[in-house]
Amino acid sequence: MARADGRSDDALREVRITRGYQDWPAGSVLVEFGRTRVLCAASVQDGVPRWRSGSGLGWVTAEYAMLPSATNTRGVRESVKGRIGGRTHEISRLIGRSLRACIDLAALGENTIALDCDVIQADGGTRTAAITGAYVALADAITWLSAASKLSDPKPLSCSIAAVSVGVVDGRVRLDLPYEEDSRAEVDMNVVATDHGTLVEVQGTGEGATFTRSTLDTMIDFALTGCAELARKQTEALAAPYPGELPGGAK
Amino acid sequence: MARADGRSDDALREVRITRGYQDWPAGSVLVEFGRTRVLCAASVQDGVPRWRSGSGLGWVTAEYAMLPSATNTRGVRESVKGRIGGRTHEISRLIGRSLRACIDLAALGENTIALDCDVIQADGGTRTAAITGAYVALADAITWLSAASKLSDPKPLSCSIAAVSVGVVDGRVRLDLPYEEDSRAEVDMNVVATDHGTLVEVQGTGEGATFTRSTLDTMIDFALTGCAELARKQTEALAAPYPGELPGGAK
Amino acid sequence: MARADGRSDDALREVRITRGYQDWPAGSVLVEFGRTRVLCAASVQDGVPRWRSGSGLGWVTAEYAMLPSATNTRGVRESVKGRIGGRTHEISRLIGRSLRACIDLAALGENTIALDCDVIQADGGTRTAAITGAYVALADAITWLSAASKLSDPKPLSCSIAAVSVGVVDGRVRLDLPYEEDSRAEVDMNVVATDHGTLVEVQGTGEGATFTRSTLDTMIDFALTGCAELARKQTEALAAPYPGELPGGAK
Amino acid sequence: MARADGRSDDALREVRITRGYQDWPAGSVLVEFGRTRVLCAASVQDGVPRWRSGSGLGWVTAEYAMLPSATNTRGVRESVKGRIGGRTHEISRLIGRSLRACIDLAALGENTIALDCDVIQADGGTRTAAITGAYVALADAITWLSAASKLSDPKPLSCSIAAVSVGVVDGRVRLDLPYEEDSRAEVDMNVVATDHGTLVEVQGTGEGATFTRSTLDTMIDFALTGCAELARKQTEALAAPYPGELPGGAK
Amino acid sequence: MARADGRSDDALREVRITRGYQDWPAGSVLVEFGRTRVLCAASVQDGVPRWRSGSGLGWVTAEYAMLPSATNTRGVRESVKGRIGGRTHEISRLIGRSLRACIDLAALGENTIALDCDVIQADGGTRTAAITGAYVALADAITWLSAASKLSDPKPLSCSIAAVSVGVVDGRVRLDLPYEEDSRAEVDMNVVATDHGTLVEVQGTGEGATFTRSTLDTMIDFALTGCAELARKQTEALAAPYPGELPGGAK
Amino acid sequence: MARADGRSDDALREVRITRGYQDWPAGSVLVEFGRTRVLCAASVQDGVPRWRSGSGLGWVTAEYAMLPSATNTRGVRESVKGRIGGRTHEISRLIGRSLRACIDLAALGENTIALDCDVIQADGGTRTAAITGAYVALADAITWLSAASKLSDPKPLSCSIAAVSVGVVDGRVRLDLPYEEDSRAEVDMNVVATDHGTLVEVQGTGEGATFTRSTLDTMIDFALTGCAELARKQTEALAAPYPGELPGGAK
Repeated sequence: MARADGRSDDALREVRITRGYQDWPAGSVLVEFGRTRVLCAASVQDGVPRWRSGSGLGWVTAEYAMLPSATNTRGVRESVKGRIGGRTHEISRLIGRSLRACIDLAALGENTIALDCDVIQADGGTRTAAITGAYVALADAITWLSAASKLSDPKPLSCSIAAVSVGVVDGRVRLDLPYEEDSRAEVDMNVVATDHGTLVEVQGTGEGATFTRSTLDTMIDFALTGCAELARKQTEALAAPYPGELPGGAK
Repeated sequence: MARADGRSDDALREVRITRGYQDWPAGSVLVEFGRTRVLCAASVQDGVPRWRSGSGLGWVTAEYAMLPSATNTRGVRESVKGRIGGRTHEISRLIGRSLRACIDLAALGENTIALDCDVIQADGGTRTAAITGAYVALADAITWLSAASKLSDPKPLSCSIAAVSVGVVDGRVRLDLPYEEDSRAEVDMNVVATDHGTLVEVQGTGEGATFTRSTLDTMIDFALTGCAELARKQTEALAAPYPGELPGGAK
Repeated sequence: MARADGRSDDALREVRITRGYQDWPAGSVLVEFGRTRVLCAASVQDGVPRWRSGSGLGWVTAEYAMLPSATNTRGVRESVKGRIGGRTHEISRLIGRSLRACIDLAALGENTIALDCDVIQADGGTRTAAITGAYVALADAITWLSAASKLSDPKPLSCSIAAVSVGVVDGRVRLDLPYEEDSRAEVDMNVVATDHGTLVEVQGTGEGATFTRSTLDTMIDFALTGCAELARKQTEALAAPYPGELPGGAK
Repeated sequence: MARADGRSDDALREVRITRGYQDWPAGSVLVEFGRTRVLCAASVQDGVPRWRSGSGLGWVTAEYAMLPSATNTRGVRESVKGRIGGRTHEISRLIGRSLRACIDLAALGENTIALDCDVIQADGGTRTAAITGAYVALADAITWLSAASKLSDPKPLSCSIAAVSVGVVDGRVRLDLPYEEDSRAEVDMNVVATDHGTLVEVQGTGEGATFTRSTLDTMIDFALTGCAELARKQTEALAAPYPGELPGGAK
Repeated sequence: MARADGRSDDALREVRITRGYQDWPAGSVLVEFGRTRVLCAASVQDGVPRWRSGSGLGWVTAEYAMLPSATNTRGVRESVKGRIGGRTHEISRLIGRSLRACIDLAALGENTIALDCDVIQADGGTRTAAITGAYVALADAITWLSAASKLSDPKPLSCSIAAVSVGVVDGRVRLDLPYEEDSRAEVDMNVVATDHGTLVEVQGTGEGATFTRSTLDTMIDFALTGCAELARKQTEALAAPYPGELPGGAK
Repeated sequence: MARADGRSDDALREVRITRGYQDWPAGSVLVEFGRTRVLCAASVQDGVPRWRSGSGLGWVTAEYAMLPSATNTRGVRESVKGRIGGRTHEISRLIGRSLRACIDLAALGENTIALDCDVIQADGGTRTAAITGAYVALADAITWLSAASKLSDPKPLSCSIAAVSVGVVDGRVRLDLPYEEDSRAEVDMNVVATDHGTLVEVQGTGEGATFTRSTLDTMIDFALTGCAELARKQTEALAAPYPGELPGGAK
């Protein structure tokens, strides 16, 4: 049974990474996985949350949100509801945790990098696109901080971070599910990995079904291959110079 | 004293209107006034708010919001604060009220058009850009509703709506203020007008200063000229065909 | 077409200003525009909001609210809803902004004057009555602060502030609309002005209608005349001595 | 040790009851116990809360609140805090419960009487003044409902309700405590009673002290005498005709 | 008319007090009044609330809550509602106030004891069981603080505190009502008393009925006898050694 | 390097399952994993959430919470904060999703089973203990529903569900981490599995570290063995008869 867009089961959708999408944040990246589009901004802020104050360590945090117009059926704003939903919390925490895996927080000093991942258009895989784009925004923010002489270690990123979804649809393991597949998947998994091939996060869920150990193994295989491809796209995107003006006129 | 960007006192910044920015909403427009960029989406929803139910009339409502990364200094999300701030409420109400001035709500039947104006990048004049862009998104939504045979009157829009800011800066009346001028303006005014030259809304405020009747008159003159120019830009943008697929394959 | 209460189109309702309505605040004024009654209290508080701290400047802020029993149909308390509505926010901000236009905040030192405008009975024009009454309460609070030797400049008020509504009803421009007129006005405008005849704030809105430049001009004419009359009432009310006991036994 | 205002230990402060204070609610009463002033409004609403719907019974509910300017030191609005405090909840529940003791809810049909008790000025005993005034507002609302032919039983009130505070101050039992006594009372009690001399509610609290059975007995004696006096004041106030216009022109 | 469980009108249900129910808090007591079960934990916290800071005095506060599964019909969590209900606030305040009556807060220094009373199973009288159990938890926390050398006075408890409900059911005064009686009681009273026989709090309410002075007297008699019996149970429970490990290895 | 409690790396802590802990819910289970104690209640409710209404299908949902006294340092109640935290949301969703994997929701008809998992004492692994206990409570609720003749299929449970944590501590893979190990684990994973050995959920996170594919494989091995052991404990616990009274006197 073929996929609606003709991809093979282990292929990614078309991936596009646009740096310098906004003018103010130190890093601002529009990432696209097919029709899914997420704006990832990395803003540098003086100081750290109160519970971390005085530690000498920096902090990286993330907030995920969706524009009401991003989905097929208009969503209600969480600001209007007056509370952030469980799914939003869960994804925000996942993004922050994932990105903290690649950075030496001591090198930041007591500064915070806030990663805002706002979904402009949703077609499945918004959280994995967000993580993949947020890494590029984070890398730009690090370049900015370095130019501003705010880093105690000039290379605080030990690896790159990318993420992809994988699932069981129509009884077959498939990579990078669009909404049409995701909404009827029997098993749904998100994998976050480094460019060294190690794992950062594995979250797999049977949706009204359970899955065997061997299905898990195949899903992990597909996901690691997908993340390696995404890491190459990130490297390509970051090969170009910093897209804005750096502090002190550095290049 | 010249303006930082070299414009004359009564000139607009460069205006760009991009239709079809997102795939799902019936209308989706990216509007740019210089560096200010606002995404205006018009979503069609069955039904009307409860207080209006059974009236046979439709409804047009608006919600304005700013991405945390849109401003020079990162803002706190209102969903995180758990409440919508006064400024946001005020602008959302202004946008909805302004757009309702051009439409025959009876022609919609009991349907709602929700206008979401999300600021991607802020550099002054976000509310006036939002109104100007929302009109174009609304016009596209009307085309969509017409193609879907959901309108009782095929031309429910009686005029177009545009808005611009005007203020007193360095003692001079100036049109379309960027943030750098807005933040130190002595008087700040927003004017919403139709392409017939009539007024929809006038909001002028002395910021730690008062202003004379004759200054008011000059500001209104500048604003009406600016709105007329914006109406021409809207007409140009809407001259191209509907940017997506219409219900029933209509063109 | 005559007005229900027999007034000419450019006449105010009967205005009454009662100082010393409450015992505790430094200024406490009951202002009545016909049946509209608003209690305006000016409370002096040590310190300023955090964002202003260390500036050496004082602050004037306002909160507007309506008793649930003030309106024809009982309203739901905003404390019960758990959030302040958009209209309340908008009016609170308008009152604060308007009153800050007449005062030299440096003279206050780092003290705050909180203006609480609580509507006891609503019959149209509550926000304009609130501004007009709040000025008188503010003037009493300044007298109190002066007696307490807390002002660096003994005359920090540069002018007086009054406000009035004006609208188009039955096709005619009319001043100071009661609820019966306000609820069916085609255009609704609030004007805040000083006793020098200059403008502080102009907010005009077409309610399902637009208005011409010449209607705007007539509305401004009516409003400025009305504000001048209100300024005379304020002066009269303030001619009597301070209605309570002053710090240090001053008179 | 004499009381600051010269009263004997078992005397009430001066009590004033003003009916018809507002124009819109069916009952509106300003009640004053010395400097304590509470506005009690009784609004008639169609229908009952959902949990009571279909029972054929009416409902009487109450909401207590304090203007921020009512107290010596300005209070923060509960609408601004976004939540109603424990004390407010407790008093609102007490008022509603107390007034329901005198009324046959079946006679109301499925209508609600909402009692809004808003403290204009606080000087101790606000909750007992509120109950005492709310009874008079309720009685006026019943007259209104009767004139509107909405009662199945023309006399649904079986008794009157009044309330008073009593406490131990300076080692002596004292009636109707002003703030100056209340704030340093060792024991603080509120008693709600009917004009038949029976009890509706007794709430006594040692404030950092305990009290003997015999002190309790004396406090109850004082309170019952005070409530009897308040019942006479209520009767006097209600002897005058209904202060507004009744439905159907009834008198 | 006999009681469903065969008790005489002035008898308590079976009372069980289990100390050391949890490992972490300084005091942790499961108290049972028949089927009513409340877990009372006393946690020691450094510092006092801000409004008390710098006074040199400690603080005792309480929070009451009910598990959703504690009642016959599952309740909605207050965390899910996003606000604490009036009843919960009222009871939390009652517990805190009652326990503060027995302790010399100066002896604590600027430390807080937080009393968490969580109802595991509800069958009437949860607030009185909570107070009775909280006293025992508090006594254990005092023992812990003494062992930790944190008390300036080794015996800061001047008496013990217990509470019981009493009401009028089937026309008879009855002690310690289970839910089946409580839900149809005509009068409902809670009494908090010390082991010296003095009163801390008396709260009596007619539920759709009023009550005479002589009924009040009988209810107080029953309650004082009940509290004396509870005080004996508390003494027995506290006769055993501290149920966990004390700081510094003290016994 | 040995574990503090002497267990081998792949051994569970002592597990205790007590059914019938509370009287009212259809299922009520206290589950203990060492010192971690969670009360799991399964309450049957008529009807389903609105979005599911009319489907003919039932629903199983879960809410997780922690008593403030459950942790080493007292926590702040989420009802007091006024919002549910991200972690709580995440775990509640996990529990509900996991338990829905074993049940045929069509067999329930339009009824809901609410699973309340309240942590009485926390020492690591509270979410996995909650899932393991909730299954037993769910099984009891199914017995209750069957006795009440409310099931269309008498055996709606297709398997049992258990969960366990596994992590990397001191460089070694270890099963069922207590707080002392969990707080310093380099990798933390929770696995939910059926008694058939299939997987329901896999959530693994590097905590400031990443992990290799082969570490993942070992962790899954340990977890599946642990879940199989837990499934045996559940079967043992459920071998005894239903611990309360069943509808219709069934056994």
